[in-house]
Amino acid sequence: MDTKKVVTFGEVMMRLSAPGYQKIVQTANMEVRFGGSEMNVAASLANLGMVAKHVTVLPDNLLGKKAKSFIRKLDINTQNVIISGNRMGLYFLEKGASMRSSQIVYDRENSAFEKLDPDWFDWAEILSDANWFHWSGITAALSSSAAKACLDAVKMANKLNIPISSDIYFRQGQWKYGKLPTDVLPEIASYSTVLLANELNMRDLLGVEFDEETESFEDACRKTLQKYPNIKKIVDTDRQSFSSHHNKISSKLFDGSQLYESETQEITFIIDRVGGGDAFLGGFIYGQLNLDNDLESLNFGTAASALKHTIEGDFNLASIEEIQNLVSGDISGRIKR
Amino acid sequence: MDTKKVVTFGEVMMRLSAPGYQKIVQTANMEVRFGGSEMNVAASLANLGMVAKHVTVLPDNLLGKKAKSFIRKLDINTQNVIISGNRMGLYFLEKGASMRSSQIVYDRENSAFEKLDPDWFDWAEILSDANWFHWSGITAALSSSAAKACLDAVKMANKLNIPISSDIYFRQGQWKYGKLPTDVLPEIASYSTVLLANELNMRDLLGVEFDEETESFEDACRKTLQKYPNIKKIVDTDRQSFSSHHNKISSKLFDGSQLYESETQEITFIIDRVGGGDAFLGGFIYGQLNLDNDLESLNFGTAASALKHTIEGDFNLASIEEIQNLVSGDISGRIKR
Amino acid sequence: MDTKKVVTFGEVMMRLSAPGYQKIVQTANMEVRFGGSEMNVAASLANLGMVAKHVTVLPDNLLGKKAKSFIRKLDINTQNVIISGNRMGLYFLEKGASMRSSQIVYDRENSAFEKLDPDWFDWAEILSDANWFHWSGITAALSSSAAKACLDAVKMANKLNIPISSDIYFRQGQWKYGKLPTDVLPEIASYSTVLLANELNMRDLLGVEFDEETESFEDACRKTLQKYPNIKKIVDTDRQSFSSHHNKISSKLFDGSQLYESETQEITFIIDRVGGGDAFLGGFIYGQLNLDNDLESLNFGTAASALKHTIEGDFNLASIEEIQNLVSGDISGRIKR
Amino acid sequence: MDTKKVVTFGEVMMRLSAPGYQKIVQTANMEVRFGGSEMNVAASLANLGMVAKHVTVLPDNLLGKKAKSFIRKLDINTQNVIISGNRMGLYFLEKGASMRSSQIVYDRENSAFEKLDPDWFDWAEILSDANWFHWSGITAALSSSAAKACLDAVKMANKLNIPISSDIYFRQGQWKYGKLPTDVLPEIASYSTVLLANELNMRDLLGVEFDEETESFEDACRKTLQKYPNIKKIVDTDRQSFSSHHNKISSKLFDGSQLYESETQEITFIIDRVGGGDAFLGGFIYGQLNLDNDLESLNFGTAASALKHTIEGDFNLASIEEIQNLVSGDISGRIKR
Amino acid sequence: MDTKKVVTFGEVMMRLSAPGYQKIVQTANMEVRFGGSEMNVAASLANLGMVAKHVTVLPDNLLGKKAKSFIRKLDINTQNVIISGNRMGLYFLEKGASMRSSQIVYDRENSAFEKLDPDWFDWAEILSDANWFHWSGITAALSSSAAKACLDAVKMANKLNIPISSDIYFRQGQWKYGKLPTDVLPEIASYSTVLLANELNMRDLLGVEFDEETESFEDACRKTLQKYPNIKKIVDTDRQSFSSHHNKISSKLFDGSQLYESETQEITFIIDRVGGGDAFLGGFIYGQLNLDNDLESLNFGTAASALKHTIEGDFNLASIEEIQNLVSGDISGRIKR
Amino acid sequence: MDTKKVVTFGEVMMRLSAPGYQKIVQTANMEVRFGGSEMNVAASLANLGMVAKHVTVLPDNLLGKKAKSFIRKLDINTQNVIISGNRMGLYFLEKGASMRSSQIVYDRENSAFEKLDPDWFDWAEILSDANWFHWSGITAALSSSAAKACLDAVKMANKLNIPISSDIYFRQGQWKYGKLPTDVLPEIASYSTVLLANELNMRDLLGVEFDEETESFEDACRKTLQKYPNIKKIVDTDRQSFSSHHNKISSKLFDGSQLYESETQEITFIIDRVGGGDAFLGGFIYGQLNLDNDLESLNFGTAASALKHTIEGDFNLASIEEIQNLVSGDISGRIKR
Repeated sequence: MDTKKVVTFGEVMMRLSAPGYQKIVQTANMEVRFGGSEMNVAASLANLGMVAKHVTVLPDNLLGKKAKSFIRKLDINTQNVIISGNRMGLYFLEKGASMRSSQIVYDRENSAFEKLDPDWFDWAEILSDANWFHWSGITAALSSSAAKACLDAVKMANKLNIPISSDIYFRQGQWKYGKLPTDVLPEIASYSTVLLANELNMRDLLGVEFDEETESFEDACRKTLQKYPNIKKIVDTDRQSFSSHHNKISSKLFDGSQLYESETQEITFIIDRVGGGDAFLGGFIYGQLNLDNDLESLNFGTAASALKHTIEGDFNLASIEEIQNLVSGDISGRIKR
Repeated sequence: MDTKKVVTFGEVMMRLSAPGYQKIVQTANMEVRFGGSEMNVAASLANLGMVAKHVTVLPDNLLGKKAKSFIRKLDINTQNVIISGNRMGLYFLEKGASMRSSQIVYDRENSAFEKLDPDWFDWAEILSDANWFHWSGITAALSSSAAKACLDAVKMANKLNIPISSDIYFRQGQWKYGKLPTDVLPEIASYSTVLLANELNMRDLLGVEFDEETESFEDACRKTLQKYPNIKKIVDTDRQSFSSHHNKISSKLFDGSQLYESETQEITFIIDRVGGGDAFLGGFIYGQLNLDNDLESLNFGTAASALKHTIEGDFNLASIEEIQNLVSGDISGRIKR
Repeated sequence: MDTKKVVTFGEVMMRLSAPGYQKIVQTANMEVRFGGSEMNVAASLANLGMVAKHVTVLPDNLLGKKAKSFIRKLDINTQNVIISGNRMGLYFLEKGASMRSSQIVYDRENSAFEKLDPDWFDWAEILSDANWFHWSGITAALSSSAAKACLDAVKMANKLNIPISSDIYFRQGQWKYGKLPTDVLPEIASYSTVLLANELNMRDLLGVEFDEETESFEDACRKTLQKYPNIKKIVDTDRQSFSSHHNKISSKLFDGSQLYESETQEITFIIDRVGGGDAFLGGFIYGQLNLDNDLESLNFGTAASALKHTIEGDFNLASIEEIQNLVSGDISGRIKR
Repeated sequence: MDTKKVVTFGEVMMRLSAPGYQKIVQTANMEVRFGGSEMNVAASLANLGMVAKHVTVLPDNLLGKKAKSFIRKLDINTQNVIISGNRMGLYFLEKGASMRSSQIVYDRENSAFEKLDPDWFDWAEILSDANWFHWSGITAALSSSAAKACLDAVKMANKLNIPISSDIYFRQGQWKYGKLPTDVLPEIASYSTVLLANELNMRDLLGVEFDEETESFEDACRKTLQKYPNIKKIVDTDRQSFSSHHNKISSKLFDGSQLYESETQEITFIIDRVGGGDAFLGGFIYGQLNLDNDLESLNFGTAASALKHTIEGDFNLASIEEIQNLVSGDISGRIKR
Repeated sequence: MDTKKVVTFGEVMMRLSAPGYQKIVQTANMEVRFGGSEMNVAASLANLGMVAKHVTVLPDNLLGKKAKSFIRKLDINTQNVIISGNRMGLYFLEKGASMRSSQIVYDRENSAFEKLDPDWFDWAEILSDANWFHWSGITAALSSSAAKACLDAVKMANKLNIPISSDIYFRQGQWKYGKLPTDVLPEIASYSTVLLANELNMRDLLGVEFDEETESFEDACRKTLQKYPNIKKIVDTDRQSFSSHHNKISSKLFDGSQLYESETQEITFIIDRVGGGDAFLGGFIYGQLNLDNDLESLNFGTAASALKHTIEGDFNLASIEEIQNLVSGDISGRIKR
Repeated sequence: MDTKKVVTFGEVMMRLSAPGYQKIVQTANMEVRFGGSEMNVAASLANLGMVAKHVTVLPDNLLGKKAKSFIRKLDINTQNVIISGNRMGLYFLEKGASMRSSQIVYDRENSAFEKLDPDWFDWAEILSDANWFHWSGITAALSSSAAKACLDAVKMANKLNIPISSDIYFRQGQWKYGKLPTDVLPEIASYSTVLLANELNMRDLLGVEFDEETESFEDACRKTLQKYPNIKKIVDTDRQSFSSHHNKISSKLFDGSQLYESETQEITFIIDRVGGGDAFLGGFIYGQLNLDNDLESLNFGTAASALKHTIEGDFNLASIEEIQNLVSGDISGRIKR
């Protein structure tokens, strides 16, 4: 069987985190990693043996060089990484404990990626042998030119019959360049094959009519699928947060006729929650390309996401074997020799 | 509104702790911090935006210099820190896990603070614009001269109508200089406005008659308030210890007519328990100076103490917003971006 | 009372572990310790004040020198450590979290110990003043010469009337030198006074007939004691694994007439699980030499093992007082000052 | 004698440096400190016992909080630190060795300081009891508003008869906001009492005619003093760089009639070169306020700068005693007990 | 201009080094890197922008996975890395200081690479678009099969007219598999285009007659070139070692008619000497592929090697700009901003 | 040949040092080691293969336990280590660079050792099979009881014909218990076989008449040997201190008739200077017990001391081979594989 090829597109940020449970105000040094929603998906897929290519822009300085080296280490193809500009997007992370929340300070404005020129990307060539394309609403929220690049990419993917996954979860504090999500997202999202969104995202970002009081996730999905005929499946994840350390997660999918719900996974000692959603998507896309059906994809993605919570950094490093083991219900954590 | 000013008085020790969960016998390096019950209260208050001044004595060497620098970092006023003598009090900390207890080895005898001269402190000037004064029985236990300085301070605070909080929780192994607590504490404590003590402290340290079998905390409080007319409120904290990592805490207050009890806070993953009581007091004093009533002060102090358990070091670094969030019942620990 | 003397025999490996919860693929440095099932037992006993001598072979290079220095630090007598050969056995450890398992990669083939010459050991002299001898099936599994040394040792211990404990828990992936366990273990084990084994070990390694469906641990023990008349007691441990962090452990002993079962200990936050079984044995042997009866030995060993789970490294460093405290039921983890 | 008070003004940046001699591309963590040319001068002066107040703008987030805490730790008064905006200026440092150069990547554009409003600063009040004011051309290079604040400050200092030191060393890559140094610096610098500049700075930044071929530093000084009558002294430093680790430094001063030259200091093993010039200035200003004459100020400043090269971080932490010891010629480095 | 493609072949080992200047017996943790003479050459070339592909065998476990990830990070193509076997070759490094020597303990016997099967490598395909092939005598010394793979590779490279560089510096303690260097090396080396060797290597390994007393390097080269007609150039490096920290290095080349000698580079503070020779070769090969002549190649290689001595790890990370800067004589180490 | 046995006596302190070149005021953690002049000598001798027993007193707490474990690790016999009292002597170390001096802050008053009871030591038994006894004036300076224990020890050693080395180098700030060195040292030193002292020590501590202006070291020695007939040899070390990093050291010995002077060793990059003198003495005593003559002892001791300067911690870890290599003049620092 041919190894499947996935292309992802989005900003990569340097992550600077206070070691252990120190608050930022206390720490004399910070751990340095890199992450970004779409690259995290690529990292998950590369880790599971897929061929993953990430398209991004990195600044032309020592930090950009370090970022590229980090991405290569993850076995992600960096052939279409553009080196240009002078600013690396950053974020600072302080890890919570018990009822104390983790805190993230973003410092990504005016980054090299935000200032990209859509013409730098020859999507026909980039996507020529791809089996999947993934992007997210975060990219479209950064700048007009980034949104334009998303649109170019999905149009080309659509033309080449490559399935497209679109993650449009909304996050407070984005969209600063003068446009509203509703100005931009509906068109780009319309080319999606699979959509990651909850019912409020569908209402607020895609302009689907939805009454929170009387209607269900399934109802919102039906309307969305009707309005956006390219979209075949809508996926959503759920999280119960008992404390910084203790969560339960699950996922669901509506395919136009049926609602599938994954097994729930409980994580009793979370090591690093950042990128949990991206790990789900990475696992889910792996499932779409390699497993038998949507329910298996959901269960695989949910287990991958659960394992991600036990791993430091923004992306999943658990093996297929570890994920399948969890899907099959083994939570014992016994030593493997 | 004017920012309130609090003065605290007591020894500051260098804390040397084995990193992570290593036993002292294992470690090749130790983390260096500073703490001390009364300075921890000042640190809490400074962190919450109050003007806090800590009065202490530090040795005239590189360690004293480091200590002073550390205190300044916490935004505590060090104007009345005396540099004299040659010994920094120390304590060594080994952190427990599950049912294994943390262990503390004190090495504080003959410290610069213990050898202070009460005449060094011009309390009239030190307290001139203060809104609160805090001291503890630990200081009175160190040496005759330290006890004398406490007495001088509370007399002046009383004369200036400054509210006084007195923490007289008794700890094994103190009082080595030839006097008994009952020789010394009743007089100093008699000037208190708010007393932190449990019923046994009232009996054993303040000479209040109390029958453990038949009487309650409230009974002990009534007798204490009667015997010490300056004291208006008695505060006490409770802790259930399920393991090194898992505790429940709460607090209560008797004001002569009514007993108030705080909400109980559960900490399911304790990062550092040292200073939990001081964080309560810091939060409680903040409440007395800024919140509407005693119950709010108790709830604020208890939540502050709970959050302190999730933070490394001897004092609270959680913000007002984080504390209020916990008071309002949010224990989800969701990431703040 | 004379301090009791225990002799142990087996390989010591260098343990290289990824710090914290990092995966091996992530880490830029590794923690270096040493461990080995039988040395771990010696370390436990030395820590509890016994005189412990460990017999082993270390390579003639900087790593062997480091290993010997490490063993001495544990207060283990290294008089009979042979320096010869050029390879230190190694193992690499990656620590799990929640449902993610810890992983161990062994790299011990062709080690200095594996290539030992049985004639290097003058067991008559080594054991001359010993009160106990301990070995394990791991050693017999390494090479013919290692198995021969075990046999020499137990024969001499038997001749000198020194009690022998034999740990024959079977581990996948051993026995590579062309012999089966059943070729080798029955003879060596036949000299044991106390056997650590479960019912399947007795069946598969010692050739005892046992029907898993219809027979109990006690049944297997009776047959084993009958077949191997030197063996007086059989000990076994049980573990319930709820996650990498949360286990319950207990132990049991059959002495030919009665089955004793220890109290169950629950560890809610495991720091390091490696060596948990060795810590049990160390505590159990301590009990056999110092406590009143087998049940006390089981309870002491089980509590010692539980505390080991809260300590980094391969062996127990908890004190007698800490262990007795846990045996008496105190799991509160309150700070000891 | 009254302790002298110095006010400084300028941006504070977070410094993220690769530990030891690692290149940025290699490191998995970075050391976090704060620095900035003018704050470094304040830190030097506070360390030498002066009262130092630094005026700056820090962002309203966890990084700004950390920065303020760091500044306080240095015993610098933070009363006039404005909290506003959302971006901390940053710089990344990679330390060289032998002939390999250190490298600095700046990431300070659009910082909270750059976006300051000159009206935020009430210079009359800020400078009310000051004995010295220090600023640098770096600040004037950041933005129009920063340059305006400099001008406001020096005008007020001039009005209050407070001596002003101006550091106008030019650094490549600054002045991005559309003005040339010659548009801005002459006016601000005209209020200086002491100028730090070399002959090319006088020519290129202050518009003084100077012929590199035929004229000397002294010639340039004479013309500058003539053109800018407020300026009484011009100071310059020299550095011979044999390698990243081995430098010689000296300084000179022209006071209108005489040229003074300091002793040369040789640093044979440099620990951290950043801030060497600021440490000179800190020492020089200390000398101007406390020592007998300009030559002593030069020698004190040069020795302070030399010692700074042996200390990690951006500012001097050597004591007056250590500096005087070096001025007196003791380079032996014998242990002080 | 087309980027040149280089293929290298050889073992990659995990390097475990004691941090700083600690001796191995002291350290509680070790830094983990990977290195290997030929991979170091590939790393140098990739770092200089060449396309570098390294051919090797890594074990099928967590360490092999980590090694592969490390190699990818260096921008080396890992397409022809074979995953097979279970043992990673290791070496342990203790860094010297002043007159104290660094020490290396190898633990590489029975590694996955040593046990390779020559048939695993399809050299025609591997070398199809290569512009250079590099191997070393270390590989030929490991096992018959490794030597066979070298022979296969050079034969194919020769057939495809790809230049071959052969590093045959002899190191004590290799050649354990029953053959002598002279049994094996002459045939493989005979296909070389460029040979790295000193006069004694030519005599002892290649069977060239050479009289140390009366003949020169040039004499040995002439005879070697005569005996091995494929060889066009012989390169050699020289090192003067004043201490662990202070060396001078240079290089020379004989092309059959003329002897070229590089500038000498002095390193006054060595950070890490391991891989200094490989960095020379990397720089030299870069020069052969990109610079104008052999002298430039020598100077570039020598400067690259000098800079490598200032960088931690086994390979060069200095940029072309930094190397050219040193070639041009700038040793000042001034900060680059 | 029998391995020689050496007994040493003196205090062991915990050393807390700021990592790298950080100043104490900067560091967030400290490295923990143990040292003490006489234990350092024992450590040197054990490292060179001698049987070394150190006699001391350690406190009965977690720090004393850690100290004992540390001493055992060094292969020093701890059979006569007394556990008593509650205070570990401490010292804090800040490492200098270039002309910046290292600084040591002692905190050893009222230590467990200082409060020893001379009757705890049964010197007849302790010294029964010793070949050498070593003590120093530091011990005699701590307390009357410590001085008494020294006297008891040297009397018994003298009675048993065991050679005694006495290190009476004087250090500022000792002798606080009310006696002068001249009250105490002459009697104890009178039993010495070998004395380590310079001419001023002989004059000021042993009451030997000596005129600095007109007389030489040799003159002082002659008079000392005459006055103290037990003393056979006087040894002295010299140090030229060019900077914190660069020293030259040598040693000399007068045996009553002849003055021997060692080769001079230059250390161009000092890692840790603490314990340099103790390492000399360890090497010198090794020489006295194992080498042919006094000059060889001096050269071996001086080389051992030089190598100690390249090693972290208070004592020498260089091997006999490394020392002999340096004695023979090899300072190249080439890698040993």
